[in-house]
Amino acid sequence: MEELPPFEAVMRSQQYFAHNARGYDSTILGRLKVESATKGRVVTTLVVEECHLNANGNIHGGVLASIVDVASSFAIASAGCYGTGVSTDLNISYLSSADLGDTITIEATCARLGKTLAYTTTEIRKGQVIVAQGRHTKFVAQAFALQKKVQQASKL
Amino acid sequence: MEELPPFEAVMRSQQYFAHNARGYDSTILGRLKVESATKGRVVTTLVVEECHLNANGNIHGGVLASIVDVASSFAIASAGCYGTGVSTDLNISYLSSADLGDTITIEATCARLGKTLAYTTTEIRKGQVIVAQGRHTKFVAQAFALQKKVQQASKL
Amino acid sequence: MEELPPFEAVMRSQQYFAHNARGYDSTILGRLKVESATKGRVVTTLVVEECHLNANGNIHGGVLASIVDVASSFAIASAGCYGTGVSTDLNISYLSSADLGDTITIEATCARLGKTLAYTTTEIRKGQVIVAQGRHTKFVAQAFALQKKVQQASKL
Amino acid sequence: MEELPPFEAVMRSQQYFAHNARGYDSTILGRLKVESATKGRVVTTLVVEECHLNANGNIHGGVLASIVDVASSFAIASAGCYGTGVSTDLNISYLSSADLGDTITIEATCARLGKTLAYTTTEIRKGQVIVAQGRHTKFVAQAFALQKKVQQASKL
Repeated sequence: MEELPPFEAVMRSQQYFAHNARGYDSTILGRLKVESATKGRVVTTLVVEECHLNANGNIHGGVLASIVDVASSFAIASAGCYGTGVSTDLNISYLSSADLGDTITIEATCARLGKTLAYTTTEIRKGQVIVAQGRHTKFVAQAFALQKKVQQASKL
Repeated sequence: MEELPPFEAVMRSQQYFAHNARGYDSTILGRLKVESATKGRVVTTLVVEECHLNANGNIHGGVLASIVDVASSFAIASAGCYGTGVSTDLNISYLSSADLGDTITIEATCARLGKTLAYTTTEIRKGQVIVAQGRHTKFVAQAFALQKKVQQASKL
Repeated sequence: MEELPPFEAVMRSQQYFAHNARGYDSTILGRLKVESATKGRVVTTLVVEECHLNANGNIHGGVLASIVDVASSFAIASAGCYGTGVSTDLNISYLSSADLGDTITIEATCARLGKTLAYTTTEIRKGQVIVAQGRHTKFVAQAFALQKKVQQASKL
Repeated sequence: MEELPPFEAVMRSQQYFAHNARGYDSTILGRLKVESATKGRVVTTLVVEECHLNANGNIHGGVLASIVDVASSFAIASAGCYGTGVSTDLNISYLSSADLGDTITIEATCARLGKTLAYTTTEIRKGQVIVAQGRHTKFVAQAFALQKKVQQASKL
């Protein structure tokens, strides 16, 4: 198995997760639309729906944190680690908000993909306005080990 | 309107948000059970259900971040700001995980409630094992202004 | 007093802090060299010296966190708040390191300057390699109030 | 070499770092006084000196971040990893401040020491007032590998 082109890597990653999707994935992962993917950088969009709202009628802070989680995982997939690993640390700053029906654009970058850890940054915008900025660090050693095993098996 | 006892403050806050609930609140806020509340410290529990799971069958990282968001807001309500404000910064570290059917316990503390900002810490445990630790800073100036207006109106 | 051009605003801010400098400022603030400043974006450089090193002979993690603190404050000054405010939240991810004699480049951006809070991002690089990424939120309401008072006094 | 008691582990860690100290360690590490150490929990104190101050005459935000870095490393040493590893993520919230001559108390806890990552929390207080709260995640795999090598060598 050769290395996948970034866009294909992200689509395969999303398909894998969608195929194995459990309840929460219908809220965020299943609704993100991949607009473009180059090595280490993925742009997605999301239309804010009723299932994303808080009691004030805005997009929920937990939804924005979840978007940072999922979109940055796509960036790790695009950089070459299709399993995307498990989370160690995530942070987010809330600069403004978004409302029902708004389309938000999410730009996620994998700033470094090491053998053990992946570091990512994510910016969520509504037009030119920044809605939120976050970073997400993931442990990728086991995801890489599994990937290697699958690649070796596919060569047999 | 006198100051509410902490437990009543949290219940009223949860009821308010439940009454105005939009789609996302059914996933987290509506399922948290308030076990105890003293001034600035609230303990809640959550049973991990299908709607909280990721593709690996564990509780989703975005769900844990959302729990930090909501539980810490209860802590702010218990400290005296019933509207709980809007988020400025949230962070979370993932130490271990939880599975379908597990009951997790969430201890949220309001470390400081100022006139403008509230600072909180949250720890999520499964039995004695720490699942996640987070902090959440909220802007409370407008929530306090609204609260004052309501209190003055109730005295008329 | 008219609004200052960004570069002049940063230089004045650095001069003010240098004029009032206390002990810690000689380690970080006094050694940062402002390379360019536009509205909300400031690039500085620092030569890693003995006073910045940890026991392993690399730049200390606390020094990198301090650089995020100070450089992002320059970005706030360039955006129009010369006093730069007080810190509420700071975070940093460590992607790689730097050694004695290295020149590191720091790019700090003020993503949003509101009336109450300023949000910033900072990236520290050594050549093309990212050393660290951070964000820093500051409370600017009082800094703005003081600035207004000074501006009004200067008109008399 | 048997496992060291926590207090001895921290003292040995501090002595090691003091012995190899470079410039920055004289500002923070060399001035922290270890008051108590049990497995995974270390209390230190620091007297705020001129070298810790910003231009406003308060303890510098970068100094508080550095204290989180160093004190949490002591907590990792007390939990059994004497080398304490390298930083991956650090965050801090600033709740209040401290002035020249104040004694601040730092309580650092290692919430989890795994084979690869260590998770810590730190609270800095001035009397009963919380000055800052932070978390610090470190990569400890290589520190453990070195420790094992030293232990095996000491058995020969």
